[in-house]
Amino acid sequence: SGITSLLGSGVYSAAYPLHDVSSLLYEEWANYSVFYKYQPIGLAYNTLGETLAVHWTWRGVSQKSTTSEVKEICFSVCLNSSMEICDPKNNITMCPLCDRVCSYWKLSTACGTARAGHLFDNPATVFFSIFMALWAAMFMEHWKRRQMRLNYEWDLTGFEDEEDHPRAEYEFRVMQKSLKKEKKSPQKVEKLTCRDRLPAYMTNIVMMLLMIGVTFAIVFGVILYRISTKAALYMSSSPTTRSHVQLTVKTTAAIINLVVILILDEVYGAVARWLTVLEAPKTEKNFEERLIFKTFILKFVNAFTPIIYIAFFRGRLVGRPGRYLYVFESYRMEECSDGSCLMELCIQLSITMLGKQLIQNNLFEIGIPKLKKLIRYIQSEQGAFQEEERQKKLRRYETDHFLEPFGGLTPEYMEMIIQFGFVTLFVASFPLAPLFALLNNIIEIRLDAKKFVTELRRPVAARAKDIGIWYDILRGVAKVAVVINAFVISFTSDFIPRMVYQYMYSPDGSLHGFVNHTLSYFNVSHFEHGKGTMDPMPYGYPIEVCRYKDYREPPWSLTPYEISKEFWAVLAVRLAFVIVFQNVVMLMNDIVDWLIPDIPKDISQQIHKEKILLVELFMRQEQGMINILERGGSSSIKETYRRSNNNNNSTTAPLFSKEQPNGTKQF
Amino acid sequence: SGITSLLGSGVYSAAYPLHDVSSLLYEEWANYSVFYKYQPIGLAYNTLGETLAVHWTWRGVSQKSTTSEVKEICFSVCLNSSMEICDPKNNITMCPLCDRVCSYWKLSTACGTARAGHLFDNPATVFFSIFMALWAAMFMEHWKRRQMRLNYEWDLTGFEDEEDHPRAEYEFRVMQKSLKKEKKSPQKVEKLTCRDRLPAYMTNIVMMLLMIGVTFAIVFGVILYRISTKAALYMSSSPTTRSHVQLTVKTTAAIINLVVILILDEVYGAVARWLTVLEAPKTEKNFEERLIFKTFILKFVNAFTPIIYIAFFRGRLVGRPGRYLYVFESYRMEECSDGSCLMELCIQLSITMLGKQLIQNNLFEIGIPKLKKLIRYIQSEQGAFQEEERQKKLRRYETDHFLEPFGGLTPEYMEMIIQFGFVTLFVASFPLAPLFALLNNIIEIRLDAKKFVTELRRPVAARAKDIGIWYDILRGVAKVAVVINAFVISFTSDFIPRMVYQYMYSPDGSLHGFVNHTLSYFNVSHFEHGKGTMDPMPYGYPIEVCRYKDYREPPWSLTPYEISKEFWAVLAVRLAFVIVFQNVVMLMNDIVDWLIPDIPKDISQQIHKEKILLVELFMRQEQGMINILERGGSSSIKETYRRSNNNNNSTTAPLFSKEQPNGTKQF
Repeated sequence: SGITSLLGSGVYSAAYPLHDVSSLLYEEWANYSVFYKYQPIGLAYNTLGETLAVHWTWRGVSQKSTTSEVKEICFSVCLNSSMEICDPKNNITMCPLCDRVCSYWKLSTACGTARAGHLFDNPATVFFSIFMALWAAMFMEHWKRRQMRLNYEWDLTGFEDEEDHPRAEYEFRVMQKSLKKEKKSPQKVEKLTCRDRLPAYMTNIVMMLLMIGVTFAIVFGVILYRISTKAALYMSSSPTTRSHVQLTVKTTAAIINLVVILILDEVYGAVARWLTVLEAPKTEKNFEERLIFKTFILKFVNAFTPIIYIAFFRGRLVGRPGRYLYVFESYRMEECSDGSCLMELCIQLSITMLGKQLIQNNLFEIGIPKLKKLIRYIQSEQGAFQEEERQKKLRRYETDHFLEPFGGLTPEYMEMIIQFGFVTLFVASFPLAPLFALLNNIIEIRLDAKKFVTELRRPVAARAKDIGIWYDILRGVAKVAVVINAFVISFTSDFIPRMVYQYMYSPDGSLHGFVNHTLSYFNVSHFEHGKGTMDPMPYGYPIEVCRYKDYREPPWSLTPYEISKEFWAVLAVRLAFVIVFQNVVMLMNDIVDWLIPDIPKDISQQIHKEKILLVELFMRQEQGMINILERGGSSSIKETYRRSNNNNNSTTAPLFSKEQPNGTKQF
Repeated sequence: SGITSLLGSGVYSAAYPLHDVSSLLYEEWANYSVFYKYQPIGLAYNTLGETLAVHWTWRGVSQKSTTSEVKEICFSVCLNSSMEICDPKNNITMCPLCDRVCSYWKLSTACGTARAGHLFDNPATVFFSIFMALWAAMFMEHWKRRQMRLNYEWDLTGFEDEEDHPRAEYEFRVMQKSLKKEKKSPQKVEKLTCRDRLPAYMTNIVMMLLMIGVTFAIVFGVILYRISTKAALYMSSSPTTRSHVQLTVKTTAAIINLVVILILDEVYGAVARWLTVLEAPKTEKNFEERLIFKTFILKFVNAFTPIIYIAFFRGRLVGRPGRYLYVFESYRMEECSDGSCLMELCIQLSITMLGKQLIQNNLFEIGIPKLKKLIRYIQSEQGAFQEEERQKKLRRYETDHFLEPFGGLTPEYMEMIIQFGFVTLFVASFPLAPLFALLNNIIEIRLDAKKFVTELRRPVAARAKDIGIWYDILRGVAKVAVVINAFVISFTSDFIPRMVYQYMYSPDGSLHGFVNHTLSYFNVSHFEHGKGTMDPMPYGYPIEVCRYKDYREPPWSLTPYEISKEFWAVLAVRLAFVIVFQNVVMLMNDIVDWLIPDIPKDISQQIHKEKILLVELFMRQEQGMINILERGGSSSIKETYRRSNNNNNSTTAPLFSKEQPNGTKQF
C-alpha cells in the first residue's frame, strides 16, 4: 500500500498502530499478580489482533494441560523399593573404570546413585510414558476443539487465507531471469522453474547437512572433553579431587553443552534465514513456512543430539575389559557409572532444559529488547532531557517510537515446540520435565505479555485462523516422542532386564540375584600388557576375577568373553517391548482422535442453526423486496429484478454478505 | 413424505424411479466388450445419482492403481536362485513327521516345494512390500484428490450433509420410555440416555465377542480336522494315498475353510443388522455407520483368522522331538512341511481369495437377483402369458416392477474392502493377490454395472460427497497392513534367518551351510516310549541322530534341547526388522501425505476464481437493483430496501444461492 512505499523511500521512518493509553491489558494480563486467573483472551483479541491472541490461547491451553500431568508425577516418585546394590552382603568387586590409575572398586559404593536412579527407573515409568503419549494426543485434540470454538466466537469460520502477493525478492529474481532470456527469445518468463532454483536447493541441502554435522562434531568434542578431563583428574594426587571426579566432569560437561547449544541456536537462526532468502520463495507465507521448517530442524537437532547420545549410545560402545574401545588410541570410551545411564540423562536434561528456559527465554527475551530500547533512546535523544519529563511530555506515538518493532511470533512458538519436545520426548527418563515446563510457562506467559504490551510496538492486527505449520510440527514431535519413549524405557532403563530376570532366570521368581546376573566375569590375568591397574591388592588380598556390566560368557566357558545367550534374550525382549509399546500407544492415539470430534457439538449445532436463520432472513428480505416492487413499481422493474435474480440462481458457490457493497457509496 | 406413508399403509406396493428406455448406459458401461475403456462416470451420474457414481469412480481408481502394481510382480518371480536343499550331497536325515507310523525322511525330497516357496520368499519381497505400502498410501491420496475434483465438477463443494430426521424405531423407543416415565413425572423425555442403551450396548459387545469366538473355534476345528485326517491317512495301507497325504489334506482343509467363511459371512451380516436394530441409533446415517462398522469387524475377522493362524502360529507350537505338543493327548500339532509356512499361506490365500471372488461375489451377486426376479415373476403373473408377449406389451413401470429393489451399496463396498485387505495385508507372502484383484475387478465392474442397470430397480438418486465411513476403514486397513507385512517378512519368511546366517555365522560370507545351520540335532534314543517310529532302519542302516527345524542345543551340549543362542539372535534381528520396516514405511507414508496436496491445484484455483466472479456478480446485481429503484421508485422504497440490506450486512455465514426462493411462487 501507500504507507509501505513511503516507508521504503524514507519519508516516514516507521509506521505502527499505537498502544492504548488506558493500560487495561497491562493490568489484566501482563502482570505476575494475576497468574492464577485465566487470560483475558477477548481483550487481547481486541487490542492485538487475532494472530497474537491465537498464540496466547495456545499457550493457555498448553499450561492448563501441563497442570493435570504434574499430578501424575507422584506415581513415579513414590514407588521406591529397597535396592539390592546397597546390600552389604553383595560385596562385588568391579573392574577398574580407567586404565592403570584406577583401582578395583566395590559395587556397594554406588548405592546412593543407584537409589537416586531408581526414582526414575521403575515400572510406574511405563504407565507414566503411556499416559504422557496419550496426554500429547489429548492436547492436540483439545487444541483443535478450542481453535474451532475461538474461530466461531471471533467470526473466522468462513475466513480463508487470501492469496498472497509475490514477495519483492521473488519478483526481482523473475525480472532478472526475464532480462537474461530476452536476448534469446521474446517470450516473457513468468515464474522460476525448478531448474532455476536447483543451485539454491542444493546449497540448502548441503548447508543443512553441514550444520547438522557441526552439531555432531561438537557433541563428540564434549565427549572427548569429558573423557580426557576424567583421565586427567583421576591422575591428580589430591584425594578430594579424585572423589568428586564424576560429579565435576558431568556438571561442567553439561554446562559446556548448554553454552554451545545457546550459541549455536543464534547461529542456526541466522543460517536458516540466509538459506531461505537464497531460496526466494514466492509468497510471504511460503517464506515463513520454509524458514520455520529449517529453523526447527536445526534447533531441534541442536537441542536433542547430546541427549540422544547419552540415552542410546553412551556406555554401549565401551568394549569389554581386556579389549576396550579407545578414541585416538589413548582414551577409553566413557561408561555409565553404576549401571544404567538414566541418572546422567536426568542431569543433562535438567541442566539443558532449565538453562534454556532461564537464560535463553527469559534473559534474552526480556534483556535484549530492554537493551535495544535503551540504545534507541540514547541514539535519538542523546539523553537530552530527563526520563520523567519525557514520559510526561511525549505523545503516545513518540513513546511508542522508542519501543522495539514487533518481529513476529516465530521465536515464541519455537520455544514452545522445543519445550513440548522436552516434555514429551524424554518424559520416561525425566518425569520432572512437565513440572519445569509448568513453572516456566507460569512465568513466561506473563513475562511475554509484559514484553508485548510495554516493550514492543503494538503489532498491526492480522487475521489468523490457526497456528499454521506449527500444528504439523507439533504432530510430528508427538509421533517421534512415542518411538523415543519406547526406546528409552526398553534400552536406557533397567526395566526390561529386570523383567527378563524375574520371569526367565530367577530361581524363585523374585528380583533377588538380579545385580549378580547382569554382571559378567573377567579374569584379571587377561588384561593387555600395561592396561591393568597399578594397584592389584586394594583390599589386602590378590584379586583374580573382577566384574563388569555386560552380558558376556565367563572366562571359563568354551567361548570366553563372547556375547552370551542372555544378551540376545534381553535384546529380543527389549525390541518386542518397543513394538508392543509403539503400536499400543498409536492405537490409543487413534482411538482418542476418533472419539473426540474436531468440532465441539454445541459449536456445530450453533453453526447449523445460524445457517438456517440466515436462509430464512434472506428469504424474508427477498419477499420484502418483491412486495415493495409490487406496491410501488411498474411491471418492467419487476421483470428486470426477476431476470437479475434468475441470473444469480445459476451460481452455486457461497456468498459472503460481508463483501456486499455499501449501497450509498455507488450514488 | 406422502409416498412413504401410502407405501406403509399398503395403498401402493412399491415406489421407484424408472429406468430409461434408451439403454445408453447399458451399451456404454454395463458391457464386457468395453472393459478397456474408461467408465462413463458422467452418464452414470446423470442416471443413477451421486451415491452410485461416487462408488463406481472409486472402483475405477482402485482398478487403475492395481494395474500399475501388477507390473511390479515380475520382480518377485524372476529372481530364483539355486537351492541348497536340492543338493544331493546334503543328504540330511529328518525326524519323522508323525508318531509311530511315519518314518525318517531325506530333506532332498522336499526340494520341489522349497523351490516353489522360493518364488515368494526372496529379498525382492521386502522391496515389493514397501512398494505396496506406499501404493496404498498413494491410492488413498489419489482418491482424495479425485473425490475433490468430482465434488467440484458435480457442484458438491458447498454441499453439506443435512441433518437426518430420527428413525422411526428410535422415536418409538423414546415414546415407550416417555410413556413409562409419565406415571412418575410429567416431564417429557426427549432422548435416550446412555443408561437406557446400556443393555443394548452390553448385548452388542457380548455378541461380537461370541461371534469372534465362534470364528476362532471353527478355525481350531479345521486344524483338528487337518491333524486327524493326516494321522488317519498316514495309517492307510495304500502307498498312493500316503504319498498324496500332504496335498489332499491341505486342499480339502482350505476348501472347508472357504465354505465356512462363505456361510459365516451371511450369518454375520444378519447378526450385525440385528445388533444394530437393537441399539436403536438415532438417525439413518448413524444406523448405517454402526451397521457397517460391525459387519466389517465380523467379516474381516472371519476372512483373515485362518490366514493369520497359518502365517504366525502354525509350525511354532509343535514342541520338539521327544517332547511334542499334543492336542487332546493324541494328536501332534501340525508342522509346516519343508521349512517355512509361506507356501501353505500362499495356497490358503489363493483359495480363499479366488473362492470368495468367484463364488460369493459373482455367483451370489448375479445368481440371487436373477433367482429372485424369477420368483417374483412367477408369483405375480403365474406364468399366464408368454415371455415375448409380455416384453412387448408391458409398460416401463411394469417391467421395472419385476426387478429386485435396490438394497444399498454396503455389500459392494464391503467386498472391495476385503479385497483391499487381501491385496495389502499379505502381499509379502502372496504377490499374486494384486493380479487376482485386477482380474476380478475387470469382470466385476461390468458385472455389477449390468446388475444395476438390468437386474435392480433404478435407485432413488441421493447426493454423496464422499465414501463416508469406508474411507476411515480403508485407512485403518492400510495401517494394519504395514504391521502385518513387517511380521510376515520377518517371521513367516526365511529372509531374516538367511541374513543372520550370512552375516553372523557363515564362515565365508555366503549362504552355503544355511540349511544345516537351521536344523537341530536329536538323539533318537531320547524318544518317549511308544512315540518313536516303527521303522528304525528305512535306509538299511540304524539311524542314531535325526534333524528337525528349530534352533535348539544339540544332545551333547550341557543343556540338551534348550533354546539356543542362535534362536535369540535371530529373534532379536527379526524384531529389529519389524521396528525398522514399520517406522520407515510410516515415515514414507507421511511424506507422501505431505507432498501431495489434498485438493488438486487447478481445482483450488478454479474455486478461488469462481468465488471472486461470484462476488463481482453479486455486486453488479445489487447495483442494478439500486439503479432500478433510482429510476422508477419513490424515496420510501429506497429507504426500505436499504434498511433490509443493512440487516443482512450484520450476518456473516455463507449464503447458498441455491436456497433462494423462486420469486414467482410467492405471488
